[in-house]
Amino acid sequence: MIIPPVQIAYPDWVDSLVDWDRRYTSDEEKMRLAIDLSRENVVRQTGGPFGAAIFDRGTGELVAVGMNSVVRLNNCTLHGEMVAFMMAQARLGCFSLRSDDGPVYEMATSCEPCAMCLGATLWSGVRRVLCGAHRDDAHRLNFDEGPVFPESLRYLEDRGIEIVHGVLRDEANAVLELYRTGKGVIYNG
Amino acid sequence: MIIPPVQIAYPDWVDSLVDWDRRYTSDEEKMRLAIDLSRENVVRQTGGPFGAAIFDRGTGELVAVGMNSVVRLNNCTLHGEMVAFMMAQARLGCFSLRSDDGPVYEMATSCEPCAMCLGATLWSGVRRVLCGAHRDDAHRLNFDEGPVFPESLRYLEDRGIEIVHGVLRDEANAVLELYRTGKGVIYNG
Repeated sequence: MIIPPVQIAYPDWVDSLVDWDRRYTSDEEKMRLAIDLSRENVVRQTGGPFGAAIFDRGTGELVAVGMNSVVRLNNCTLHGEMVAFMMAQARLGCFSLRSDDGPVYEMATSCEPCAMCLGATLWSGVRRVLCGAHRDDAHRLNFDEGPVFPESLRYLEDRGIEIVHGVLRDEANAVLELYRTGKGVIYNG
Repeated sequence: MIIPPVQIAYPDWVDSLVDWDRRYTSDEEKMRLAIDLSRENVVRQTGGPFGAAIFDRGTGELVAVGMNSVVRLNNCTLHGEMVAFMMAQARLGCFSLRSDDGPVYEMATSCEPCAMCLGATLWSGVRRVLCGAHRDDAHRLNFDEGPVFPESLRYLEDRGIEIVHGVLRDEANAVLELYRTGKGVIYNG
């Protein structure tokens, strides 16, 4: 009894939202894409209020996006950041986005990563993480962030990963509020 | 430019190793399957030396297995535990293995979970985790386990997840040593 392959696909609205050819230069532009993904995921009812996007830091090129897909795909691991990592690595054909002489990659995520996503950030090879909403904002919706401590963040920083907090926090948090007022599923209760 | 779906499939040796109809009753039987998966993954050169399996605790039925698939599938998130969670949830058609009145599920993993897998353990809904090799055993191979602290484990235990350490540790560790002497890829250097 081999279990059939698990398929992880974007919801069908992605191409209508995302401009794949644009160059994203500022932190705010990158974060706005992550927030737009989080909002569209709520509006289209395809998942939780979380979006992420991965960029080539040097050129501003978009590599991959991600959106929470836990409920849509019956898969607890599919937070927005995880989908973005998987898609970026599939596109680049490599299990790490870090190399000695290649491009530097960074991720914008509409909310501070949970424990799982923070661990995956380390394995992903991204060198810089932009965070929108704070973990406290997610907590107000009763989303648990898991065992993330100040020393967890330091662990990543000590390994050369820059973490920037509160980029467009209010805009990111507005999507969390939109989800709350719409009584969206809180799957990590 | 929508990125094509990511496919997560077992390596083709799984059905020849795994007896899906057997009932696994003791902790040691469950762990031995996780270790067998880790060893086969090394011998067949399909990934790192880590295996996992998820069981219905009440009946001893096997729900899903997992094996490290990071390099094989170019996906940094595919540790053995993550593959097991994804496959179990796909099989059961639910994003959580925890319910008020349903079966209790437990996981055996051949090595203590890294930070990512520990976070995912919380989201997965398993209620009990059996660990084989210690994180120090993985460290000796230069596998990083990420930001896992004693309070990380307590965080899970406080939420009703029992964690049992050192089940058949020597057997589990022997597979790590087999990988080391075979000069396997250390992808989380």
